[in-house]
Amino acid sequence: MTGLRVVALGGGHGLHATLSALRRRPDVFSEVTAVVTVADDGGSSGRLRRELGLLPPGDLRMALAALAADDEQGRFWADLVQHRFGGTGALAGHAVGNLLLAGLLEVTDDPVATLDALARLLGCHGRVLPMATVPLDIEAEVELPDVGGTHWIRGQVAVASTPGRVHRVWLRPDEPPACPEAVQAVVDADVVLLGPGSWFTSVLPHLLVPGLRDALLKTAARRVVLLNLAPEPGETAGFSPEQHLDVLSGHAPSFAVHAVLADTASVPLPERLRRSAATMLAPDGQVRFAEVADGGSSTPRHDPAALAECLVDLVGAGGGRDR
Amino acid sequence: MTGLRVVALGGGHGLHATLSALRRRPDVFSEVTAVVTVADDGGSSGRLRRELGLLPPGDLRMALAALAADDEQGRFWADLVQHRFGGTGALAGHAVGNLLLAGLLEVTDDPVATLDALARLLGCHGRVLPMATVPLDIEAEVELPDVGGTHWIRGQVAVASTPGRVHRVWLRPDEPPACPEAVQAVVDADVVLLGPGSWFTSVLPHLLVPGLRDALLKTAARRVVLLNLAPEPGETAGFSPEQHLDVLSGHAPSFAVHAVLADTASVPLPERLRRSAATMLAPDGQVRFAEVADGGSSTPRHDPAALAECLVDLVGAGGGRDR
Repeated sequence: MTGLRVVALGGGHGLHATLSALRRRPDVFSEVTAVVTVADDGGSSGRLRRELGLLPPGDLRMALAALAADDEQGRFWADLVQHRFGGTGALAGHAVGNLLLAGLLEVTDDPVATLDALARLLGCHGRVLPMATVPLDIEAEVELPDVGGTHWIRGQVAVASTPGRVHRVWLRPDEPPACPEAVQAVVDADVVLLGPGSWFTSVLPHLLVPGLRDALLKTAARRVVLLNLAPEPGETAGFSPEQHLDVLSGHAPSFAVHAVLADTASVPLPERLRRSAATMLAPDGQVRFAEVADGGSSTPRHDPAALAECLVDLVGAGGGRDR
Repeated sequence: MTGLRVVALGGGHGLHATLSALRRRPDVFSEVTAVVTVADDGGSSGRLRRELGLLPPGDLRMALAALAADDEQGRFWADLVQHRFGGTGALAGHAVGNLLLAGLLEVTDDPVATLDALARLLGCHGRVLPMATVPLDIEAEVELPDVGGTHWIRGQVAVASTPGRVHRVWLRPDEPPACPEAVQAVVDADVVLLGPGSWFTSVLPHLLVPGLRDALLKTAARRVVLLNLAPEPGETAGFSPEQHLDVLSGHAPSFAVHAVLADTASVPLPERLRRSAATMLAPDGQVRFAEVADGGSSTPRHDPAALAECLVDLVGAGGGRDR
């Protein structure tokens, strides 16, 4: 199968990994759209959204950089947008691309026009869109180990780093407007990829934006969930792969998927994962195990080449094999 | 005469006016190079140079914007680089283009490559270069009216706004390295324009960079001085047009010019200006009076169209007339 329209939903380093994989095979994934979380409240993005009231730019910037052209012009501008000011002054820690996105958002007052302009500058192989047109906040119900009982916490940083166990997340505002172009991309897609990434703060939120959730439920695209290589300290500390799936179906009970892709070495109990997946798999759905981790990395990280080949095999071959 | 290589030296709004004029007549001024002061220590530029130790970007940014292509792409990026963040936060008052230039300067560690890259983005009709490759400071000897005696003050803002009378300015470091590409542009030019602009802080400094001064002295280009429309509060408060010329020849005694261009209505005593000019005019030099002010502006401002036609006439006609 060639010429597929793929939408990858996520944020941060997880989405960067997926996009880095997809762009390696433009022969198969000819049209790539990244749909990016806009709930970050930490670091450079958090400072910018608090100061200027804009969409947090960091995850958008990182997706643009992942799709930048691999030529002199693309690398030049990608290096620039990823560059962070050092020191201890007012700019310390700000990525140049975040400032550029912030300026463009103010000038155009149009997130999609802003991202399209920057995508042209970087010669991106694909489009980057926000999941919603307004900045969002994540709230969570967590169980704190020492204090006991359930508590509400607010903000991506708080949820991502909580020492407590996250039970449920939701968004503020609670019915945020989806980005229409992102909705349309999901509806028109041949393949939709959800994850990997910070599960509660970068992956699940896409299913909590009503317009985007509806599109994800009704699209005729093959829906693929890409599991993480390891639980994340904080929000998913101690979570097994099957618990990641349980949490996903808990937040979007009617969301059926055609494939769950897991790294073989990251799943200690494959049968448990299959059982958990069974509740959310479409009739022709499958759980696929493959070696997609970068063995040379000191932190858990997907290998873009291996992930690319696995995705080609999964969606290109019709997805009939369950090895 | 067509296809002239023109170098305009200055900074700030004065240089913006000259560049806006030159770009109106690409048939005559086919190759435009702006050579820009890098001694600003105020506002957004001052904050950036103090925080990051870089060339102050503001005057460079303004020159780029003045030369930006008059098409959709050029206007889009020019609007962005000129946009200033509002509010009262860490970014308040920073022009997006200053932040972009600062990031590029850090990434490339090469001011010329930085400016060429941004010029390509804006589709500039010409090139923008710094007069020196390191940030400079202006120092001045001033006579303070109430205190009496002469005092040394330091910094562009201090000099530009001094209540005292400026006698002399110099640069720190005192033998700064000229930008080689700027030197070459002056040597290769057909026409060199100095001024208008803040006389002590944007115009004179070019003659205080040894490499650039030498190029200005030896170039075969026609050298034209464009006088200001009015004295500036602070650095040239109360200065007559002829005093502007006297100050110029005082700082660069061997600098001979082929034309001095003054706005007719801005020179109360034309004969005095002619006498002052005589000391610095080349043998075929002239003083030219023309109506080049924007009559509709509440602040003194050159009219780009009128200035363009005057310059075409001055250098295109061989400059033989002295009306």
